[in-house]
Amino acid sequence: MKIRSLFILSLFWLCEVTAQTDSSIIAQMYRTALTKGQSYQMLEQLAGGIGGRLSGSPQSYKAVAWGKKVMEKWGFDSVWLQPCMVPHWVRGAKEECSVKYSKGKLFTSEKLRICALGGSMATPKEGITAEIVMVDSVSELAKLGEAKVKGKIVFFSRPMDRAKITTFEAYGGAVDQRYSGPSEAAQYGAVGTIVRSMDIGISDYPHTGTMKYNDSFPKVPCGAISTQAAEDLMKILKTDPHAKLYMKMNCKTLPDTLSYNVVGEIRGSEKPEEIICVGGHLDSWDNGDGAHDDGAGCVHSIEAVRLFKALGIRPKRTIRAVLFMNEENGVRGGNKYAELAKLNNEKHIVAIESDGGGHVPKGFGMSGASEEQMKKFMEFAKLFQPYHVYEFTNHGGGTDIGPLREQGVPQMGFIPDSQRYFDLHHTEIDIMKNVNRRELELGSATIGAMLYLLSEYGL
Amino acid sequence: MKIRSLFILSLFWLCEVTAQTDSSIIAQMYRTALTKGQSYQMLEQLAGGIGGRLSGSPQSYKAVAWGKKVMEKWGFDSVWLQPCMVPHWVRGAKEECSVKYSKGKLFTSEKLRICALGGSMATPKEGITAEIVMVDSVSELAKLGEAKVKGKIVFFSRPMDRAKITTFEAYGGAVDQRYSGPSEAAQYGAVGTIVRSMDIGISDYPHTGTMKYNDSFPKVPCGAISTQAAEDLMKILKTDPHAKLYMKMNCKTLPDTLSYNVVGEIRGSEKPEEIICVGGHLDSWDNGDGAHDDGAGCVHSIEAVRLFKALGIRPKRTIRAVLFMNEENGVRGGNKYAELAKLNNEKHIVAIESDGGGHVPKGFGMSGASEEQMKKFMEFAKLFQPYHVYEFTNHGGGTDIGPLREQGVPQMGFIPDSQRYFDLHHTEIDIMKNVNRRELELGSATIGAMLYLLSEYGL
Repeated sequence: MKIRSLFILSLFWLCEVTAQTDSSIIAQMYRTALTKGQSYQMLEQLAGGIGGRLSGSPQSYKAVAWGKKVMEKWGFDSVWLQPCMVPHWVRGAKEECSVKYSKGKLFTSEKLRICALGGSMATPKEGITAEIVMVDSVSELAKLGEAKVKGKIVFFSRPMDRAKITTFEAYGGAVDQRYSGPSEAAQYGAVGTIVRSMDIGISDYPHTGTMKYNDSFPKVPCGAISTQAAEDLMKILKTDPHAKLYMKMNCKTLPDTLSYNVVGEIRGSEKPEEIICVGGHLDSWDNGDGAHDDGAGCVHSIEAVRLFKALGIRPKRTIRAVLFMNEENGVRGGNKYAELAKLNNEKHIVAIESDGGGHVPKGFGMSGASEEQMKKFMEFAKLFQPYHVYEFTNHGGGTDIGPLREQGVPQMGFIPDSQRYFDLHHTEIDIMKNVNRRELELGSATIGAMLYLLSEYGL
Repeated sequence: MKIRSLFILSLFWLCEVTAQTDSSIIAQMYRTALTKGQSYQMLEQLAGGIGGRLSGSPQSYKAVAWGKKVMEKWGFDSVWLQPCMVPHWVRGAKEECSVKYSKGKLFTSEKLRICALGGSMATPKEGITAEIVMVDSVSELAKLGEAKVKGKIVFFSRPMDRAKITTFEAYGGAVDQRYSGPSEAAQYGAVGTIVRSMDIGISDYPHTGTMKYNDSFPKVPCGAISTQAAEDLMKILKTDPHAKLYMKMNCKTLPDTLSYNVVGEIRGSEKPEEIICVGGHLDSWDNGDGAHDDGAGCVHSIEAVRLFKALGIRPKRTIRAVLFMNEENGVRGGNKYAELAKLNNEKHIVAIESDGGGHVPKGFGMSGASEEQMKKFMEFAKLFQPYHVYEFTNHGGGTDIGPLREQGVPQMGFIPDSQRYFDLHHTEIDIMKNVNRRELELGSATIGAMLYLLSEYGL
């Protein structure tokens, strides 16, 4: 009995010591990130320096070279590129949009701020001019049918639900209009579509984003107008239902082109075959400089791994930063990464993605984990409380790590605060000056701390 | 046994129902704030419209009139003013500062961005020019003593500790240099002082703030230079320890003047004599428009009470919004409020203050509560989790409610996220455009929810 008690006591003591060590290492990570962190400087180079970097653009190639160079500079054990073919869409000259309507007996015209959706075809050179059918959903569109839609421009007008606490939830509830709306409208004979931007507030910045044509239907040009323009247009349509919209877009899809994921890792000391990967996507939309989406995720990932080097910690398991190419309009990089992981029999124990911006860290959400794994994950939570990181949820992940998930790898999404994200997402104001240094560095420390726990204890 | 079980079951059911009601009312508060909240519009009037409103300034009187009018407009049961005498300090013409130093064999000069500290005297008309003694603390100053300090300008150079997770903690660790540094330096014969701004990062915005002369020592002019200027100056002093600083300030303290707290309340239906007050301070520094400090706290307080009207909820206890005058340089409003509360035998069960800016809500901290009260407070916490409000701590409060605390009233501080606060606190960029609508409205909902629980259950 005595011996057993002693044994239990020793175990208890061991656990205590381990907990202390973990918390002190995590404290060092936060301290280092806040005082000597490199995330912000890296982001100044990637977003501020290189700028928007849509797949296939000259900037995207600069970003690949930058990512490789910077991971080599930090002394990662290996850094390599993964070639993959990506779509190559170009916006062309600035889009135009206006509405012409009657005001009493006079006709008047108002410009509306618009941008083409990624993947859209161009309008004819002279643009399109047509009457407008406003719908708040695909189902309302279906009810109207060809009789009311043919020859018109469909305006998808449903706003994001501002009552949602998490803005990503509001995004999820509205983005179908942007993604599949154009083909849904085209099947009833629409000649073009516009969508109210995925903006949680009212601003005059149009939000671009990807859409997907359904090959069964004709293709029509599609754009997003700012939420301010959408509000204006709704008022105009109340007074003049026959108002006509003019839109001109000059975009083009070029042949697929070769691009790359950038991968860098530090090999584990005890179980090098067990890989924990963390990534963001290197491509971004072309209108801003992709500082939050997803420059932040890229520098979070690099910095989280770099913190091990900075603190002289050799992880027990292999930790790997991945800069995925082509999240925005194809996920070719994410697919390629998973394909190669399978081909090379790599054993990923978990994949983490940061693709929610560089705002203040709130936690992590995990999907695809067993009950036991989820329990372990939840036990990590208390170590994050001193840093005001409280959200540990049972759903989360990322677009780029989705294909790994299909191979049975649990996935984890880093959760930053979301309140400001859809003010700037996919717009010309997703730029470096809207990133806060401390918030960004805190994100890297939070991911670094999670990497540390995973590399020590597995999942 | 059966009856007892039934009784327990009923109790359980009652608790469940109550919990559901509370959570559904709280949900309505958040929904209303996010979709029809008035905080942002009110702040546009107060900060954007009226501007900086230091005690005694014309803007401060406009702010008093605005506060009264707006609470009347929302239909509070009673709205009144509490007269109090306040200090009246004016900045005067823009301050000047430069450093002259040798660079090799040449002399050169560099401008440094400065602002006078609130309460400082002016320099002579021709300014002051003197050599600089750089110290990182009052204790280092004491070690140097009169021999090294006399006739010089003391430069307090210790930065805020960026490693702190909460920036208020970093502020607390550095602000003594600003507050008592001038008199500490004057006792050793310094002719003026400058302090590195209380800025958590590096920027070229000087941060003003109050200081306090010690009547036992001579008075000297004192200003804050931007953190960028402080960094530059530190480098200059390394190459030329005899560099000379020039500073010119034109501020003046006028006679005390009459001003007002603005108070508005909704009377409780069951225990109207039990008062729960929530406040922010109506005065602000003069260089920005005091949008975060503390326009946010004012509109949080008004809106938290207004939400009861908007939802048709009559509180059981009396809830009261207080816009305190003169937090920044005297706390005369806070003292007057407590004095009158005592005089009128008012029974405050708890006082809440919002004076940490309008960023995303994180929780509340409470001080001066009994063990039982603290337990009740902690039980409220779970109702806030759906809104990502997790911090319930056993320390917190506010400057304006401090005097009530001395009468034994527990005090509670609303905790918003602090990462960005000391980028803009007391500067020309504490302005409306740096306030995020959703973050602000979420703060009001969070305080409204806390008011609701306190008005239902007391403390």
